[in-house]
Amino acid sequence: MMNDALQYAQQHQARFQAQLHELIRIPSISTLSQHNEDMRRAAEWLVADLLHSGFERVEVMPTGGHPVVYGEWLGAGMDAPTVLIYGHYDVQPAALEDGWSSAPFEPFIKEDYIYGRGAVDNKGQIVAQLKAVEALLASPNKAPVNFKFLIEGEEEISSVHLAQFVRDHAAMLQADVCVISDTGMRDVETPQLCYSLRGLVYMELHVYGPSDDLHSGTGHTIHNPAQALAEIIVKLHEPDGRIAAPGFYDDVQTLDPAERALLNEDALTEAYWLEQTGAPMTWGEPEFTLVERMGIRPTLEVNGMVSGFYGEGSKTVIPAKAMAKLSCRLVANQKAERVYQQVRDYIIQITPPGVRSELKLLSSGEAAYTDPQHPSIQAAIAAYEKGWGKKPTLYRGGGTIPIVADIQQILGLPVVLLGLGVGDGVHGPDERYHLEAFRRGIDTAIYFYDEIAHSHQHTANGA
Amino acid sequence: MMNDALQYAQQHQARFQAQLHELIRIPSISTLSQHNEDMRRAAEWLVADLLHSGFERVEVMPTGGHPVVYGEWLGAGMDAPTVLIYGHYDVQPAALEDGWSSAPFEPFIKEDYIYGRGAVDNKGQIVAQLKAVEALLASPNKAPVNFKFLIEGEEEISSVHLAQFVRDHAAMLQADVCVISDTGMRDVETPQLCYSLRGLVYMELHVYGPSDDLHSGTGHTIHNPAQALAEIIVKLHEPDGRIAAPGFYDDVQTLDPAERALLNEDALTEAYWLEQTGAPMTWGEPEFTLVERMGIRPTLEVNGMVSGFYGEGSKTVIPAKAMAKLSCRLVANQKAERVYQQVRDYIIQITPPGVRSELKLLSSGEAAYTDPQHPSIQAAIAAYEKGWGKKPTLYRGGGTIPIVADIQQILGLPVVLLGLGVGDGVHGPDERYHLEAFRRGIDTAIYFYDEIAHSHQHTANGA
Repeated sequence: MMNDALQYAQQHQARFQAQLHELIRIPSISTLSQHNEDMRRAAEWLVADLLHSGFERVEVMPTGGHPVVYGEWLGAGMDAPTVLIYGHYDVQPAALEDGWSSAPFEPFIKEDYIYGRGAVDNKGQIVAQLKAVEALLASPNKAPVNFKFLIEGEEEISSVHLAQFVRDHAAMLQADVCVISDTGMRDVETPQLCYSLRGLVYMELHVYGPSDDLHSGTGHTIHNPAQALAEIIVKLHEPDGRIAAPGFYDDVQTLDPAERALLNEDALTEAYWLEQTGAPMTWGEPEFTLVERMGIRPTLEVNGMVSGFYGEGSKTVIPAKAMAKLSCRLVANQKAERVYQQVRDYIIQITPPGVRSELKLLSSGEAAYTDPQHPSIQAAIAAYEKGWGKKPTLYRGGGTIPIVADIQQILGLPVVLLGLGVGDGVHGPDERYHLEAFRRGIDTAIYFYDEIAHSHQHTANGA
Repeated sequence: MMNDALQYAQQHQARFQAQLHELIRIPSISTLSQHNEDMRRAAEWLVADLLHSGFERVEVMPTGGHPVVYGEWLGAGMDAPTVLIYGHYDVQPAALEDGWSSAPFEPFIKEDYIYGRGAVDNKGQIVAQLKAVEALLASPNKAPVNFKFLIEGEEEISSVHLAQFVRDHAAMLQADVCVISDTGMRDVETPQLCYSLRGLVYMELHVYGPSDDLHSGTGHTIHNPAQALAEIIVKLHEPDGRIAAPGFYDDVQTLDPAERALLNEDALTEAYWLEQTGAPMTWGEPEFTLVERMGIRPTLEVNGMVSGFYGEGSKTVIPAKAMAKLSCRLVANQKAERVYQQVRDYIIQITPPGVRSELKLLSSGEAAYTDPQHPSIQAAIAAYEKGWGKKPTLYRGGGTIPIVADIQQILGLPVVLLGLGVGDGVHGPDERYHLEAFRRGIDTAIYFYDEIAHSHQHTANGA
């Protein structure tokens, strides 16, 4: 059946791409309420696609926020393993004025890439999964495993309602393994498998000074809130890049030397990273390599900042307030709630007395980890070898998929991050997905389900 | 003729207010190009008003930017003194979302105040001048002095083209004294006369890091431009509030103890200032009083700041760039160009190596000073006593009217700052002008022109 499926995928490749374009065209931005209707349209697109592939149960299920799309095909039978496939249909905000070369929700193909918001994160990768499963179900013998799709609409706003949804529907979601294609690789010739993700705490820091903006002729008599915000931001880090909030590193796991060595085998060079980012030099804790800073160290970053007048021309005001968006990436065994409290308490301590400050918690997600020796990770390694033509290197990811830790903890499942992403511009302008990665990704997923079926059979026989 | 004029002003007070409403209703925001048509409408309103009062020569005269409105009445004859009255018809930007309680360009009267952008700065005060002159010209004997009105449209963008205009039309603008009503007083019972103004340097600081916004999962590997901007801003001041740029205070004049004592006679109390601003505590150089910090000390303030994502919700980016609007108030004998260079050189020095920075000069204006003993200042003191019912206290102003220094230098005229402003919200939300100040202001201006005529006669007789 696998060969039938691979052949089907090859034959329908053009349609698969056209379908991905369709989904990108829907601006399903979860964080902006004016796009709620687009969120609904994206969910309906997924429902139609799952029904077309032959899924038996397909539902748009409510949450406290944007709905979950759930699809179930149990045709492989009770003895076959069941795979829970997680993905998300929401995207980050995107607008031409952010620096896009063309309209972010009008996808097009140029030099081997599909351009558009969501092309890689996550529409391209979830469509690759949907199409791999469609190809398997279209083959005469159908699929060797059962499928449950769980596609949410709040990943880009830290999956605020998904943990509760998973708790409420734990029986429905029961499976043998969870697979998530929402991670990337450096380039199309270098498959990489992520076995660890960082957590995230997203916060808003507000600084308040005078009750209204003042004429700047009254300057140097009260503390300027923009300046006070700058003072707070500077104190968040030590000069060497360490985060200054007391206790921040208390729960950070020390890596064993073997894993640290493994991690650095495929080390990102400074030259490559400077070329990739365009920054004049690197920054951060000198005793950790770039790969380590991104994978095994926590961070605290300013994601945005605003105060007073910033339009065209000049306005001589002293702003009444200033705001910064701050977020931390967390590593095992840090807990989001505790980190938020540490940062909040520290900010209270360092707020200059001439202003008031407030740190709001917007969202959070915990860090996650799957042992690289687990059979399902080994199945993924074998699948990449066949589908991608090369063994993947293993790495710890710098990003956060909040649901990974929740699925591990609530459902007790191993989670395989079957990353199929090759591209750029994730969360930034000109997001794009490599077409060859999309194609190889579909094949790799087909091989992966075959590997999972065999490994299950092997385990079952051995028991 | 003075009594006729005072009576006329009293009889037409309701119409004068209605006319001020008309002018406020035109959103003549010089810094925003979409308001160019409104700028033209405001200029035409002034032309119509001057013609209606009997001015003989009225013109809208081009500059490199927004035009100047010029009006001339020389009916007092060659032996009478000529007064050049300067004002501006442009206003600062204003929008409901800046915190206004109602639409900023829909003026209304509530509890003795006219509300609206420009009510005090400068539409209310220039209309008071226009109406004082109208009242004099409407009286049987006309006015005892000749009038030249010079009303510009770029004061809120640092009078970028006015100095050149004054140089180009120096003969046309020749006069015996220049009067400007664009300063304020604490409350309607406390007339205050400003004899010194500060200069202004308005700048934009840009900080550039990576070429595009990055996913924040790559944090702590390059220097975050928002954080780097914060680091630069913090280093602009010493902890005690002094500006840290080397040489910044080199040209600052030391005040003689007598003037310093005089200045502090009417000292602003800390309690009053905190109540007025709503700030939790005062800030600034401890060895100078609040009045001194606002009048005789230079400042460096952040007027605004923007970077990355600052909308609703969360977006996990590392911004590619960050920007701050910075401005300095200058005192005699600082020079704007030199201060800009000092700040620019210092910023080059303190810019962290992981980012690039650029400091752009947007506009500038020099500080100005008129000797309080000058006869025209003494005439103003007498006019306040009659028109306002109380002798004014003298002070050094914290604001900047760039043209004052230019008029002094180019035309060689004494400048009297006949401030008629009582209100709040100048450059901020809910700008308002006290109606009684508008009324008394018109009377005070009428008395002032009478005093000027007498003082001129006295000087002429004495010569």
